[in-house]
Amino acid sequence: MAKNQKWILKERPTGLVDDSNFLFIEEDLPEIKDGEILIQTEYLSVDPTQRMWLTDMPGYLPPIQIDEVIRSGGMGRVIASKNERFNEGELVNGFVGWQTHLISDGKGFRKVPELLPIPTMLNVLGLTGITAYFGLLDIGQPKEGETVVVSGAAGATGSVVAQIAKIKGCNVIGIAGGEEKCGWLEECGLDHVIDYKATKATKEIRRIAQNGIDIYFDNVGGPLLEAVLYQINQKARIVICGAISNYASTDLPVGPRNLSSLIINRARMEGFLVLDYLERMDEAIQELSKWLMDGKILHKEDVQEGIENCPSTLNRLFTGQNIGKQILKI
Amino acid sequence: MAKNQKWILKERPTGLVDDSNFLFIEEDLPEIKDGEILIQTEYLSVDPTQRMWLTDMPGYLPPIQIDEVIRSGGMGRVIASKNERFNEGELVNGFVGWQTHLISDGKGFRKVPELLPIPTMLNVLGLTGITAYFGLLDIGQPKEGETVVVSGAAGATGSVVAQIAKIKGCNVIGIAGGEEKCGWLEECGLDHVIDYKATKATKEIRRIAQNGIDIYFDNVGGPLLEAVLYQINQKARIVICGAISNYASTDLPVGPRNLSSLIINRARMEGFLVLDYLERMDEAIQELSKWLMDGKILHKEDVQEGIENCPSTLNRLFTGQNIGKQILKI
Repeated sequence: MAKNQKWILKERPTGLVDDSNFLFIEEDLPEIKDGEILIQTEYLSVDPTQRMWLTDMPGYLPPIQIDEVIRSGGMGRVIASKNERFNEGELVNGFVGWQTHLISDGKGFRKVPELLPIPTMLNVLGLTGITAYFGLLDIGQPKEGETVVVSGAAGATGSVVAQIAKIKGCNVIGIAGGEEKCGWLEECGLDHVIDYKATKATKEIRRIAQNGIDIYFDNVGGPLLEAVLYQINQKARIVICGAISNYASTDLPVGPRNLSSLIINRARMEGFLVLDYLERMDEAIQELSKWLMDGKILHKEDVQEGIENCPSTLNRLFTGQNIGKQILKI
Repeated sequence: MAKNQKWILKERPTGLVDDSNFLFIEEDLPEIKDGEILIQTEYLSVDPTQRMWLTDMPGYLPPIQIDEVIRSGGMGRVIASKNERFNEGELVNGFVGWQTHLISDGKGFRKVPELLPIPTMLNVLGLTGITAYFGLLDIGQPKEGETVVVSGAAGATGSVVAQIAKIKGCNVIGIAGGEEKCGWLEECGLDHVIDYKATKATKEIRRIAQNGIDIYFDNVGGPLLEAVLYQINQKARIVICGAISNYASTDLPVGPRNLSSLIINRARMEGFLVLDYLERMDEAIQELSKWLMDGKILHKEDVQEGIENCPSTLNRLFTGQNIGKQILKI
């Protein structure tokens, strides 16, 4: 009989999460029934959106309820199967949750060929990489020679966005916090990197983007958007992807006061969710895999370890500790 | 020899304009030369954008310079011509400026057949009507049954937007200030009218738009946008047309703090300028004329009189005094 260790929601957190917001529970799992599989979680994909699910704000997925296991994407291995679609030993991708084991009817789980290390697959070929792909190419529509600014550029989505923009022949400015992140972004071949911890990013943007900004891929929300709006070119596109600066905050952020720049510059600001692109995922995975193999996309994973560290690993996203994709190995 | 009376810019105003920001000058005009025409101004189109031109902010047209005549669209009559394109007595449309007469080589002036009263032509068939047409149809893309919210709905652009939305089968909510304006909008056939002077518009929007908002046509800027963002439906379109609440203000407005609603709802916010549609103007004028003749678009012009009243008439736009298109008869 399998034992499961899991984190369930005890109370909704404010600000950064704390172990005391959750309960850590050990339970016996029943035998699997016909049609079911037993999955052992191997790696969790730790993403900013999870912090949103912990609030009671309506979102694109329902809030996690009190006493429910914390929702999380990840990779697991089928260790027992009474479902003909799955064989023991196969790797699967889906919402495994903050737990070591789970029983599922297999719906919502996708079998994954083990061609690359699992953290790499969860990064560039996972939802964050696919978000980067469709957000930049479909919503941003970059053209050769255009200037692209990416905030949160050392994050899982931001770093892929910046590198796809380079592949498309753009002049790419990345914004990140700290020497280590910025150094890595330089290795990735960005044209300019702004360290918002060492300089005033709003001022640096004005200095560096002297020919104006054609695309702003916003992973963080907050005051940077206003600085960008003062610098946009005609027909600029602002891709609103994340608002990480707000997720763990109890106050609403300050909004950009210069939206009239959208009028003068006939510019567009658009939000999107990768969920709307599920039926085109193969297209993204194919192209991203090719770029990975050709060494055109460098990647970094920050791999923490241990089921007991779920809450503290989530916080790393909001304290700026992670470089690249945040992963938790179970 | 013709005499011209004109207003030139003496100093950049802050807030509402005052006669003392300008100089009122009388001058003798020279004889016209070969290729020139003498135009007598009949009506000025008084538009919010003029207030922007009085600042030194870069815009889609250069700021009006100190000592220059105040730029203004309008209709004038050719009273002398040495240009084969124009005959004496013809009505022309273009940037006549705050002045009674002007000499021009005819460039930028369009001859206008006198089919309708001039104020009506400056209204529904003028730049404000054409702005409504392309802003709603091209940027907003209304579909039958959708809910459209229009701010500044009793203004020249807003009232045409609201009525085109009705023609397209939408559920239309107009926001305006005061009983008289709101009463008129009800005559225009809007489904709901919110009087922001009598009720709290942000609250009323929540109550009335219970099925959500698909299009917000924003003529005013400011805090209403935030209230709308909380109510938008998936794939909503926000057309940023004007920011009249900011033009005459020295402070920047408060920006919407909930732009992350654009993400959750995969929504788009887009600015535009009617200047980008100049080559498609005939299309708009044809359709708008048809709707006018069929009585499907009601219209109102607020006609003030006298060249001496240029500054005070401009202020009417920002103090909410005008219902419908603001016109000044010279």
